[in-house]
Amino acid sequence: MYQERINKAKILLEALPYIKRFHGATIVIKYGGSLMVQEERKGMFAADIVLLKYVGMNPVIVHGGGKEISRWMEKLGKKAVFVDGLRVTDAETMEITEMVLSGKINNEVVSLINQAGGRAVGLSGKDARMFRAERMKTEKDRDLGQVGTVTSVDVGLIETLSNDGYIPVISSVGISEDGESLNMNADDVAAAVALGLGAKKLVYLTDVQGIMKDDNLIPALDYAEATELLNSPTISGGMKPKLECSLHALAGTVDNVHIINGSVEHAVLLELFTDIGIGTMITSDGK
Amino acid sequence: MYQERINKAKILLEALPYIKRFHGATIVIKYGGSLMVQEERKGMFAADIVLLKYVGMNPVIVHGGGKEISRWMEKLGKKAVFVDGLRVTDAETMEITEMVLSGKINNEVVSLINQAGGRAVGLSGKDARMFRAERMKTEKDRDLGQVGTVTSVDVGLIETLSNDGYIPVISSVGISEDGESLNMNADDVAAAVALGLGAKKLVYLTDVQGIMKDDNLIPALDYAEATELLNSPTISGGMKPKLECSLHALAGTVDNVHIINGSVEHAVLLELFTDIGIGTMITSDGK
Amino acid sequence: MYQERINKAKILLEALPYIKRFHGATIVIKYGGSLMVQEERKGMFAADIVLLKYVGMNPVIVHGGGKEISRWMEKLGKKAVFVDGLRVTDAETMEITEMVLSGKINNEVVSLINQAGGRAVGLSGKDARMFRAERMKTEKDRDLGQVGTVTSVDVGLIETLSNDGYIPVISSVGISEDGESLNMNADDVAAAVALGLGAKKLVYLTDVQGIMKDDNLIPALDYAEATELLNSPTISGGMKPKLECSLHALAGTVDNVHIINGSVEHAVLLELFTDIGIGTMITSDGK
Amino acid sequence: MYQERINKAKILLEALPYIKRFHGATIVIKYGGSLMVQEERKGMFAADIVLLKYVGMNPVIVHGGGKEISRWMEKLGKKAVFVDGLRVTDAETMEITEMVLSGKINNEVVSLINQAGGRAVGLSGKDARMFRAERMKTEKDRDLGQVGTVTSVDVGLIETLSNDGYIPVISSVGISEDGESLNMNADDVAAAVALGLGAKKLVYLTDVQGIMKDDNLIPALDYAEATELLNSPTISGGMKPKLECSLHALAGTVDNVHIINGSVEHAVLLELFTDIGIGTMITSDGK
Amino acid sequence: MYQERINKAKILLEALPYIKRFHGATIVIKYGGSLMVQEERKGMFAADIVLLKYVGMNPVIVHGGGKEISRWMEKLGKKAVFVDGLRVTDAETMEITEMVLSGKINNEVVSLINQAGGRAVGLSGKDARMFRAERMKTEKDRDLGQVGTVTSVDVGLIETLSNDGYIPVISSVGISEDGESLNMNADDVAAAVALGLGAKKLVYLTDVQGIMKDDNLIPALDYAEATELLNSPTISGGMKPKLECSLHALAGTVDNVHIINGSVEHAVLLELFTDIGIGTMITSDGK
Amino acid sequence: MYQERINKAKILLEALPYIKRFHGATIVIKYGGSLMVQEERKGMFAADIVLLKYVGMNPVIVHGGGKEISRWMEKLGKKAVFVDGLRVTDAETMEITEMVLSGKINNEVVSLINQAGGRAVGLSGKDARMFRAERMKTEKDRDLGQVGTVTSVDVGLIETLSNDGYIPVISSVGISEDGESLNMNADDVAAAVALGLGAKKLVYLTDVQGIMKDDNLIPALDYAEATELLNSPTISGGMKPKLECSLHALAGTVDNVHIINGSVEHAVLLELFTDIGIGTMITSDGK
Repeated sequence: MYQERINKAKILLEALPYIKRFHGATIVIKYGGSLMVQEERKGMFAADIVLLKYVGMNPVIVHGGGKEISRWMEKLGKKAVFVDGLRVTDAETMEITEMVLSGKINNEVVSLINQAGGRAVGLSGKDARMFRAERMKTEKDRDLGQVGTVTSVDVGLIETLSNDGYIPVISSVGISEDGESLNMNADDVAAAVALGLGAKKLVYLTDVQGIMKDDNLIPALDYAEATELLNSPTISGGMKPKLECSLHALAGTVDNVHIINGSVEHAVLLELFTDIGIGTMITSDGK
Repeated sequence: MYQERINKAKILLEALPYIKRFHGATIVIKYGGSLMVQEERKGMFAADIVLLKYVGMNPVIVHGGGKEISRWMEKLGKKAVFVDGLRVTDAETMEITEMVLSGKINNEVVSLINQAGGRAVGLSGKDARMFRAERMKTEKDRDLGQVGTVTSVDVGLIETLSNDGYIPVISSVGISEDGESLNMNADDVAAAVALGLGAKKLVYLTDVQGIMKDDNLIPALDYAEATELLNSPTISGGMKPKLECSLHALAGTVDNVHIINGSVEHAVLLELFTDIGIGTMITSDGK
Repeated sequence: MYQERINKAKILLEALPYIKRFHGATIVIKYGGSLMVQEERKGMFAADIVLLKYVGMNPVIVHGGGKEISRWMEKLGKKAVFVDGLRVTDAETMEITEMVLSGKINNEVVSLINQAGGRAVGLSGKDARMFRAERMKTEKDRDLGQVGTVTSVDVGLIETLSNDGYIPVISSVGISEDGESLNMNADDVAAAVALGLGAKKLVYLTDVQGIMKDDNLIPALDYAEATELLNSPTISGGMKPKLECSLHALAGTVDNVHIINGSVEHAVLLELFTDIGIGTMITSDGK
Repeated sequence: MYQERINKAKILLEALPYIKRFHGATIVIKYGGSLMVQEERKGMFAADIVLLKYVGMNPVIVHGGGKEISRWMEKLGKKAVFVDGLRVTDAETMEITEMVLSGKINNEVVSLINQAGGRAVGLSGKDARMFRAERMKTEKDRDLGQVGTVTSVDVGLIETLSNDGYIPVISSVGISEDGESLNMNADDVAAAVALGLGAKKLVYLTDVQGIMKDDNLIPALDYAEATELLNSPTISGGMKPKLECSLHALAGTVDNVHIINGSVEHAVLLELFTDIGIGTMITSDGK
Repeated sequence: MYQERINKAKILLEALPYIKRFHGATIVIKYGGSLMVQEERKGMFAADIVLLKYVGMNPVIVHGGGKEISRWMEKLGKKAVFVDGLRVTDAETMEITEMVLSGKINNEVVSLINQAGGRAVGLSGKDARMFRAERMKTEKDRDLGQVGTVTSVDVGLIETLSNDGYIPVISSVGISEDGESLNMNADDVAAAVALGLGAKKLVYLTDVQGIMKDDNLIPALDYAEATELLNSPTISGGMKPKLECSLHALAGTVDNVHIINGSVEHAVLLELFTDIGIGTMITSDGK
Repeated sequence: MYQERINKAKILLEALPYIKRFHGATIVIKYGGSLMVQEERKGMFAADIVLLKYVGMNPVIVHGGGKEISRWMEKLGKKAVFVDGLRVTDAETMEITEMVLSGKINNEVVSLINQAGGRAVGLSGKDARMFRAERMKTEKDRDLGQVGTVTSVDVGLIETLSNDGYIPVISSVGISEDGESLNMNADDVAAAVALGLGAKKLVYLTDVQGIMKDDNLIPALDYAEATELLNSPTISGGMKPKLECSLHALAGTVDNVHIINGSVEHAVLLELFTDIGIGTMITSDGK
């Protein structure tokens, strides 16, 4: 009986080198994908985040929520229109988008983490006008309406909360200089927040295992390899923008971007606290 | 020409005694009523709040939003049911309630204040599990569903933000010990927040001039008079719960409760910074 | 009746952009001239300063007091002698000078501000040996006695007091390395204090409207224009040294020097908090 | 393969409730017994301590080292004399005692912890005159020489180091008011340090499983039960003084004393981070 | 040659116990008497004060200056009038008094200390409205004019300066609630300042050796003895008010009052740093 | 009688300029030589150090203890072997070395200082892994065993203690990257500690008067002269390594190295607090 418990203690200690390495480190985690609809996984995710906080890291969560937005638009009898994969966002769509992201998903993530013993605080880019944002310019000048990009992030509020023991949870909604609400891509926002905070680590929780090549997971890529991959035809359409965000982050202060499957049990802990990791890690080496 | 400007300077200086008196004071303001739908008034309210912050006070805003909830329920084809003036709140109603309060109205107030030059941050009672709340017990044990009352407020998060220059804006949504979302009366929440913060001043922005007697405004009431009024038949049905909240707050740390008409231009400044005030002030004298 | 009060509130809010812009700014104000003998104006000046402090600025007052020195010399049967507009200062004159400046005028200004609700503290350049000073060298090597110039200002004491909520009031008396008391030009001292503090704003309260050209007030000058004016014959004898001090300050950290008529009611507030200003503003543009 | 790693993550999370409960808690650990001579166990102990520090606790180590003292006395041709289990300590014995405790064992523990990634600092009761100590008074007034008891502990130094991220390691040597070095019982010292620090938890690492009754381990005792046991004949001679120290600590601020077998692998982690624990826990309940 | 220097080092070390005992202690010193006119003694006094500051004490200086006031009144052709030893102070006398105390003597003491290497800052009771003061009530209701007593001292400013390394030098001038300048007894003020600061030590520098009995110095008195002496006929008229101030201070937080001859070389150091002391020490024992 | 005491006060004041000059300065003092065996001198040394601390300096003590190591090796029947003046240090020798240095001499110095009223804390290079150290490389690759050199010093621990009022006392024992204990030259260590701390002053207490030339003490040398001397044949074998250490320190942040006779009474005070000094001072001038 002792032996079983001793083995548990040994596993705790296996995590020690990682705990030491990441002590005091800020880690931005993009929460998203089908993880959001798997009740059990949500609880695991929350517990993982609380553990990170208690062992001395500063996790910051960013989320979007496209599917839920579509579901509520449908409920309200409004048809979703997409151009090049981007939701055309008229005023009414924006109203619904914000209610879903900031009023529903955000609160849900906050409550999950608090239920797991953390002290999460929900934010959006509107709070303290944290994001400088502007309407996105599409290549063919298509009018997408209130779809925006973050031009910079004022991280003062995040740092105040993080240093005081809170876990910031940020929805991907912002506001333009002249007060127009904007919906933004959460992967983009996560990269911008990581750069603003000078974080060394950025984690994307997705629905896929990571970046694949011929049906095999690529466990690691350096900056040069990732750049090459971006320009190759083998990269999937869905992964391309995520890879672009990753390279943007790595071009700045971020040392490692992890693209992992959020629906794997305890995906975050596995990636950070075990030797092998579970998805694709892209490093800033060779940039 | 000089003279006109000199007169302006004199008015600035008339405010000095009030600025001094309230310097460093925390003031909880319940934002609500038809003020919420008057565009011009909203901007005035926001400017007033920013001025309070800049001259050294710590304003904290609390809001509800019953009408807007009803409007969205209707849009979604859901019928609002009321018992004793309280909205019966099933799970779906709660979902809509939270989306409207935390995802729409809260962001709107935050953005208004930020547009006016402040740094507002939106919160709900769920953030950092700020409110301890439980299901409301009705007199006749009617099941109202997810309607709650605040039992206590952990003001750590509000103070962290307030001391760091931010203006907290709080929606009246909370969560029970076992994780059930609860809709709460915003007047109640404002009183609880004021008590938690040890605030000396609580302001209710309403749709009426103040407390009336025979069509005349009662400019001032002490604790004893207000208690007597509460038990008299002359008090209107709508004012009664507000008066109860006021007395609850005055029984604690609050020295003055102001019940004023939010749709008066610059109602907050008038009440705080001019000698006469515009609504009813209830003091803790005689308690 | 409401309307009148509402108009007052609007005027308060007109000041908001200025309050925001100057929040946390250090402003050095040279107090002087006939303002010193107008009882009502003194009280206005004091109230203005207290308001500046309460809305978040850090006013620092510098004063001289030539006329009052002359009055006391006369009382003591001592004849004032001037060379090139500078008072020849023997030991006895210096003794009287210091008694008048540090023992009379300084205390008066301190008490005025405290009476208006501020917390002023009187200082001279001798306190904590704040000023490094030396005997002034005149062009023709005329011996002026204990007349000095400030070579540098150690602003530690001013900052300690200012940060702790006090308003420093500084008389233009200093001491040389070898312990000789020196009387200094207060305009000079104000510029040196502003430079030492890295202040962005320096205000000279004078007896004239500002810098005049052909009987008209020049409302604004940039650095180049002011330099040119200094070398032109049109500049009045009295304004020349003040213009020299201004340019000295603008050559350093100061962005704006205001030369205004101190006997205008609420001159300081008018200049800082209204759009037009009342005197001449010289900016560092074009330097 | 995933599954194995996922199981590891789950074990990490099993520790979360304990990590939360003990976050910021000071824990005094008496290191001793045969643990000191088992190389592999020493490394485990050190790793355990470092983990405690990294997950937010403040471990403080106290040690003695009787066997090693005897070994060095023998090497130096000096015979150890014991009276009632206490080493008679003449000046030469004290000299050796201190060299062994503070110059050998202490450094060894410090280096072990540092090798495991912590930042340990070695101390004795002489440093900053941390211990107030005096010669022990024996019942029959036998002269034991330089054997002492701690009368109080000035914990300022321990707190300075602990708050700054260091792990204090303290040898059980002290000094009397008049400067005489004193050897003290390390169990005693551990209790005194725990009381001085207001610690809630005190752990004795011993060579036995815990407190036994009829060859069975007693897993838990409350204060009343432990007091009764102390006065019963069943308590072993070796456990009696340890039980006395425990009760002394529990009579003060300490809530739990753990008597556990230090030679069990990862004894400290098992006791603190698993539900069952491995030795005897005495609680302050029922005192 | 060595030996002489070694003897000097020994003397330095003789002071060590006193330095330790008084480390961090606040000491209020009333500077006054004929000391003020002995150039050499002044320099010694200043050097003594700087030494106190550098070895870790917080000296605070209080001074009056009656003789110098009289001298200037005479110069201005104004006759001094005394009633019961108190100067009748009309408006003009007050004006001169303040100029002499705050504008002359205060600056002189400040400069002396700064010349000796300290960082002194001159204050009066008007600064930051430090003294609450009111017109003195005489026994026979004689109108003494602007003669006042301190009712309380707000020591915030003194502490801010003292903690920041400055040496406060305070003249005995104050201001009433309604803004009237008041001249106060400096012995009184020194006691009030000591009580406000919670000082343990108060030193009166006088022109006499201390309290005498039959031409012999009384080296020490406890509270009871001093009280008895106050009521006995042997106490001299000049010493009586000083003894009253002493007892007032001792009735509060002050442990020791020293009445010493300021014109003895290095009187302050002798009293504080040598075993015997030079004047009369009154202790709070027996109160 | 007064006069004698007054002369003492004057001597106290003679030290004032030195106290001022060294206020807040960090001074590293290498304690060693025969001073260690002269009981009376030890007490003087301790009193000197405590005085330095109380008058505002930050003394840091470094010591070795070769003679005492030899004495204990002999007691244990172990023969000391030296190569080029360096002790060949096998594992057993290292064990004894550390017990003597960290367990005996270090505690003795700590206790001496504490007995004199200071708050000393004993450290070695192992504490918090303060020294980065490696095995010394001899010229002829002779294997000296566990003899090391300091490559860098992490002074965080020293500064934490020093700033908190403690006096660090450091033995010259360290540890290599891979955990091997190393004995180091204390003169070397003192220089490395001084450089790590950015100290301006380094004092070597030795058994000789200072650096001699033709039987005469050289009172002062600049960097160039000292370099020249190092390469001249006149430098004694014993002084050469000390001179090398001195030049190493002076090449960095140290301004003055003092080589003085520790057995002179109050050597440290004499050197620091009297005009002439007693040994050789080497300055960084001319480097």
